[in-house]
Amino acid sequence: MLRIPGPTPCPEQVLRALSRQMINHRGDEFKEILLRVTQRLKEFFQTKGDMLILTSSGTGGLEAAVVNTLSPGEKVLGICGGVFGERFASIAERFGADVRRLNFPWGQPADPEAIAQALDSDPGIKAVLVTHNETSTGLTNDLASIAKVVKERGKLLLVDAISSLGCIELQSDAWGCDVVVTGSQKGWMVPPGLAFVSLSQEAWEANRKAQMPRFYWDFSVAKKYLEIGQTPWTPAISVFYALDVSLDLIAQEGLQNVFARHARVGRKAREGVKELGLSLFAEESHASNTVTAVNLPGGIDGRELLRKMREEHGVVLAGGQQELAGKIFRIGHLGWVQEGDIEKVLEKLRLVLTELGFTSRE
Amino acid sequence: MLRIPGPTPCPEQVLRALSRQMINHRGDEFKEILLRVTQRLKEFFQTKGDMLILTSSGTGGLEAAVVNTLSPGEKVLGICGGVFGERFASIAERFGADVRRLNFPWGQPADPEAIAQALDSDPGIKAVLVTHNETSTGLTNDLASIAKVVKERGKLLLVDAISSLGCIELQSDAWGCDVVVTGSQKGWMVPPGLAFVSLSQEAWEANRKAQMPRFYWDFSVAKKYLEIGQTPWTPAISVFYALDVSLDLIAQEGLQNVFARHARVGRKAREGVKELGLSLFAEESHASNTVTAVNLPGGIDGRELLRKMREEHGVVLAGGQQELAGKIFRIGHLGWVQEGDIEKVLEKLRLVLTELGFTSRE
Repeated sequence: MLRIPGPTPCPEQVLRALSRQMINHRGDEFKEILLRVTQRLKEFFQTKGDMLILTSSGTGGLEAAVVNTLSPGEKVLGICGGVFGERFASIAERFGADVRRLNFPWGQPADPEAIAQALDSDPGIKAVLVTHNETSTGLTNDLASIAKVVKERGKLLLVDAISSLGCIELQSDAWGCDVVVTGSQKGWMVPPGLAFVSLSQEAWEANRKAQMPRFYWDFSVAKKYLEIGQTPWTPAISVFYALDVSLDLIAQEGLQNVFARHARVGRKAREGVKELGLSLFAEESHASNTVTAVNLPGGIDGRELLRKMREEHGVVLAGGQQELAGKIFRIGHLGWVQEGDIEKVLEKLRLVLTELGFTSRE
Repeated sequence: MLRIPGPTPCPEQVLRALSRQMINHRGDEFKEILLRVTQRLKEFFQTKGDMLILTSSGTGGLEAAVVNTLSPGEKVLGICGGVFGERFASIAERFGADVRRLNFPWGQPADPEAIAQALDSDPGIKAVLVTHNETSTGLTNDLASIAKVVKERGKLLLVDAISSLGCIELQSDAWGCDVVVTGSQKGWMVPPGLAFVSLSQEAWEANRKAQMPRFYWDFSVAKKYLEIGQTPWTPAISVFYALDVSLDLIAQEGLQNVFARHARVGRKAREGVKELGLSLFAEESHASNTVTAVNLPGGIDGRELLRKMREEHGVVLAGGQQELAGKIFRIGHLGWVQEGDIEKVLEKLRLVLTELGFTSRE
C-alpha cells in the first residue's frame, strides 16, 4: 500500500495499458493518442491555452518553464516555504536569473499581501515563481489570491502544480497562471516519465524574448511538432498509453467529483491523525488535500515508525525532506485513493504508535 | 511489425514487466533495481567508469553530455554527416559553445585523418562530438579510429551511441570515449523514457570546470544520489522494470552473440535490398548493422511505398529525414530482431515494389 506523495498507485486498467507493444511515434496511431490526451489535459488544467507534454519528471517541467520564459539577469520573485519552492527558485538561479526569495516559514501559507508588497517595492521584478501545493510541508497555497496580486501588477506567473493539478481546483486561465507544470506520477495515476505544461499567450510572448539556453525543453519546437501530431524527441510511449486510460477514468468520475474526493480524503487524514493524538505540521487552514504532514511526537523515531509501517503492515509512508527529516512523516493521498485507504493507514498507524510506546496526552 | 530505428519492439517478458505496480523510488526495492541495472549497463558499455540513468529521451542524454562537460565560448569540433551529427553540434551551439563543424557527405563515413588534421590546425579545440551510428543515413562511423586520433591529441570525446550501443561493438574505456550516450528504446528492447550515460575520469574533470548552466541534467547531483541508490528526480519507474528484464535477456544471449546477431541481420538486410534491385544509401564499407537506408528508385513515391507496407502488410518502415525526405527509406533492425524478421520485410517489399511498377534493371 503505497501512500507517499508520488509516485501514486496506478489502477489495474492503467497498469495493463503499459504493456502495449511499441508503435511508431511519428505515425498516425501515436498522433491520435497525443492529440487526445493533450485536449483532455487542457480541460483538466481549465485552459484554452497551449499544452505541451515533455518526457521528464516534474522537475524537468519546472526547468522547462524557467528556461523558456526568462533571460539571465532578469529579476524574479521566488516564493519559498518548503523544499519545492526552494527548488523552483534554485533552477531559475542556476540559469542566471536574479532571484529574490520571499520566504515564509515552512508549514505557513504564502501571504498574498506580502507578495504584493514585495512586487511593489521592486518594480523591476518580471516574473513570480510559486508552488501551488508544497509537497514537503503538506500545504496548499491560496493560488487564486496570489495570482490576483501578481497579474494585477502585470508579472509573469509560473506555477509548480506538480502535486495539486487534477486533485485540487486550479483554474489556469481564470486565475491568470501563465505557465503551469505537473507530473504524470501524481494525481494522474500514471507512472512517472511525463511532465505536462500549460502556456498562456503571455507565456509565449515571454518565450519569444527569453534568452536562457534551451534545446531539449524548447517550447516553440514542441509546439511546432504538436501541430503535426508529434513530439520533437522520442516520447515515453508506454506512459502515454497509461495516461490515455487514466484520463478516461478521471473524465468518467468528473473533475469536480475528483476534487471532492480529494477533499474528503484529505479531511479524513487530518481528522484521523488528530484523533490519534498527533498534530499536523502545516497550518490547518491551508492543509493540503493531497499530502498530510504529521509532526513526529517526542520520543518516537521516525525511521522506525516508517520501517514498521512498511515491513510489518505493508504501508509505505514518506519521511520529512531536508530540514524536516526526522521531524515529520507524510501520508500521500492523491490520485487513486479512497477514504477507506486512509482508514487502513490510520488503523495501522495506531498499532505501530502503541508498539513504539506513544500514548496520546488526551 | 515495427521495423523503424527505434522505438523497437519489446519482447513479451519486457512488456509484462511494465505492468508492475508503482513502488517508492526512494525505497530499498527501487535501490536494488537501480544498482543492478547500473552495474549491468556498465558491463555492456564496457566501462569501469560511472554510469548515470536519466529520465528523458536520448536527445536529453546528448544535452546532458554537453552541458555537464563544456563552457560557453569553448571551441568544440562537431563531426557532422547526418541529422544526428547536426543535432549534437546544434545542442552545443545553443548552449554557447564555439562549434566548428567538420562536414562529411551524408552517407560517407567520417575520416579519422581529416579529424586529426582539423584538430591539429586548431589546437584551441577542447572537445569532439561524434555520432557512432548515424541513424539518418544508416552508417556506422569507425569510432575506434576516430577515438584514437582524438585521444592522442588529449581532447575530450563525447559520443552519441544512441542507435549503436548494445548492438554494435563499442569499447568505451579501451577506445577512450569520455561520455557515451544511448537511449532505452533502441538496442535495449525497452520503451523510450530513459537515457544512459557513461563517464570517464576525464569527463568528471571536465565536469568540475564546465560552466554551462544545468539543474535537471546535473551529473554531479545524479552521482551523489546514485551513491545512496536513488535518482535526484522521480525516475520513469516502469521503464526501469522493463530494463531490468531486458538486460537479463541480453546477458543470457551474451553481448558478443548480440553483436553477431546484429551483424547477420544487417548483412541480410543489405543483401536482400540489393537482390531486389535497390541500392544502399550509405557507403557499404561502413553500412550500419542497426538500420539500413535504401535509395528510393526513380519513379517510386516513398510515401506510397511506406503506406502500402504499413496498411496492406503491417510492416512499419521509416522514411528519410530532413534533406533525405523522399529520397530514401529506412529499415530498422536493432534490438529484438532476427534474420527471419528481415526476410519477411524483404518479401513484402518485393510485392509492394512490383505493385508500384518497379522493375529491377538487372
